[in-house]
Amino acid sequence: MSKKLHVAIVGATGAVGVEMMKTLEKRNFPVGQLTLLASARSAGKTLPFRGEPITIKELRDDSFAGVDVALFSAGGDISRKYAAVAVKAGAVVVDNSSAFRMDPDVPLVVPEINGDDVKKHRGIIANPNCTTAITLMALYPLHQEFRVKRIFASSYQAVSGTGAQAIAELRDQVQAIAAGRPVEKKVYPHQIAFNVLPHVDSFLDGGYTKEEMKMQNEGRRIMHHPTFKASVTCVRVPVYRAHSVAVHAEFERPVSLTAAREALAQAPGLEVVDEPAKCEYPLPLYVAEHDNCQVGRLRLDCALENGLVFWVAGDQLLKGAALNAVQIAELI
Amino acid sequence: MSKKLHVAIVGATGAVGVEMMKTLEKRNFPVGQLTLLASARSAGKTLPFRGEPITIKELRDDSFAGVDVALFSAGGDISRKYAAVAVKAGAVVVDNSSAFRMDPDVPLVVPEINGDDVKKHRGIIANPNCTTAITLMALYPLHQEFRVKRIFASSYQAVSGTGAQAIAELRDQVQAIAAGRPVEKKVYPHQIAFNVLPHVDSFLDGGYTKEEMKMQNEGRRIMHHPTFKASVTCVRVPVYRAHSVAVHAEFERPVSLTAAREALAQAPGLEVVDEPAKCEYPLPLYVAEHDNCQVGRLRLDCALENGLVFWVAGDQLLKGAALNAVQIAELI
Repeated sequence: MSKKLHVAIVGATGAVGVEMMKTLEKRNFPVGQLTLLASARSAGKTLPFRGEPITIKELRDDSFAGVDVALFSAGGDISRKYAAVAVKAGAVVVDNSSAFRMDPDVPLVVPEINGDDVKKHRGIIANPNCTTAITLMALYPLHQEFRVKRIFASSYQAVSGTGAQAIAELRDQVQAIAAGRPVEKKVYPHQIAFNVLPHVDSFLDGGYTKEEMKMQNEGRRIMHHPTFKASVTCVRVPVYRAHSVAVHAEFERPVSLTAAREALAQAPGLEVVDEPAKCEYPLPLYVAEHDNCQVGRLRLDCALENGLVFWVAGDQLLKGAALNAVQIAELI
Repeated sequence: MSKKLHVAIVGATGAVGVEMMKTLEKRNFPVGQLTLLASARSAGKTLPFRGEPITIKELRDDSFAGVDVALFSAGGDISRKYAAVAVKAGAVVVDNSSAFRMDPDVPLVVPEINGDDVKKHRGIIANPNCTTAITLMALYPLHQEFRVKRIFASSYQAVSGTGAQAIAELRDQVQAIAAGRPVEKKVYPHQIAFNVLPHVDSFLDGGYTKEEMKMQNEGRRIMHHPTFKASVTCVRVPVYRAHSVAVHAEFERPVSLTAAREALAQAPGLEVVDEPAKCEYPLPLYVAEHDNCQVGRLRLDCALENGLVFWVAGDQLLKGAALNAVQIAELI
């Protein structure tokens, strides 16, 4: 890519929007012009990009004139309303919301797994759910080696996955408890400080949450594996940044630890951190602000014939959102 | 039991020891005399029981004269050294450590599940691992209904499971972070505040931890089910008190949600808290200091033919330790 591009970020003031700007800087993305879009409330404020203040503009129907790439991260409603507007204006949209992820006309892409799917786009490319993306970064290399049938997984999800307000809520609750003041709850239905909530996203009829079913639904599309099954329990934990997932995976072919380790060691965007005797395993605290995901605690599953258990962690604002979106933009 | 008993608590100053005293009081256990035993360091201090101060004595070979029931909770080494001494002096030992749990001559008991096994004791009865006991409180009623084959589980374990020093470590780390001071690590190898550690107990050759394999090893003994399989990932979370476990369970017989709910609703020592639409599910923060365990998030497993997923939480100092030990003593 030698041509400089006009990039727009929709939802520039959000937790992911801010990381998108940093990622564009860090990866030296060929930004010729950067347009920051947000609600009327934020319009007029500035955010720094490459040392220069950029004034935030209000998102409107005429916001996308001349834009080449529009990175959306302002929730599903905004994406449903404005993605088509941006496409009509000539932009390619990389959408971080769940609005188009299951649309058969919209590629759902993790560049390290199905980067080629980008080519099929008709204007919009969807960025997957953060927990799904992080899990697949470790699962897909094993799938290529042994062919995955199903997984049983439990997540440990950071509050920043909910957004900037949730980060403040955890901090405020911890301070309130230390000061003996009553705990206020605005973002989560229950106290998140010193607690864990088995509730991420809304509940579906079968008893799973939407978030829990994304692993199977989005995993099938990303891995091109329509019979993949995933039974997941998603849990919010009092961690500021980076999600972790405990995964028990069953494969069609016989597994070996040696081959599994080799597949994981060679996988792009993934680091193996697996020296339990030295207390080395992926930790959300250490993987925060880290581009690569980390996998460890790899072992043969004692309750499955061709099974592996592992623990994967990744910064969900980066690989789960901003980094993956910019990587997609690089492929366009 | 009309006779008043002479009860000894070994490890009286520990997190579990203190709960044992409270539980004896609360359940109106027929204590005629209470002897509190601990290391020389604590000897001479007092702890209140039924409003009276009781002086802690140093644990010695002659500590058990006249003792009817000795509740041990001072770690495996102390139990291995002194349980036989107590039995020789005529006491029945209820041991909360892992020292005797796999000894075929020592019953391993959760009163609601295999209370009858107490009758087979030869002086020592073992109290199970806390995470195992809490999980089985919900799994066993389902096992009776559908016969469990295997489970895949991930735990969310509170720091109080490690002991009083770990509670202080979490509190100190949170304060240090708020004050911008460096975080000190004494109990855990990594910061536990705003982090999760996939590391509970020591690592075994196969890559599981001892804690993780207790679910299968102890579960088989308690449920009298020698082919039960359990693949578990145990994780420490920054919660002060009460463990939670996400369980994916496969059964031999076809399952139904109606029958499962009924079995759980009728189970002793267990409460069903399962109204996700009202944001009601078991939470470690609310189940803390609560005798009963709680189960919720019950659903049919989308990746298993006869499978159920559930979320169980319980106060591991009570059902996982002190309460279960006193319940065993009541059966003697």
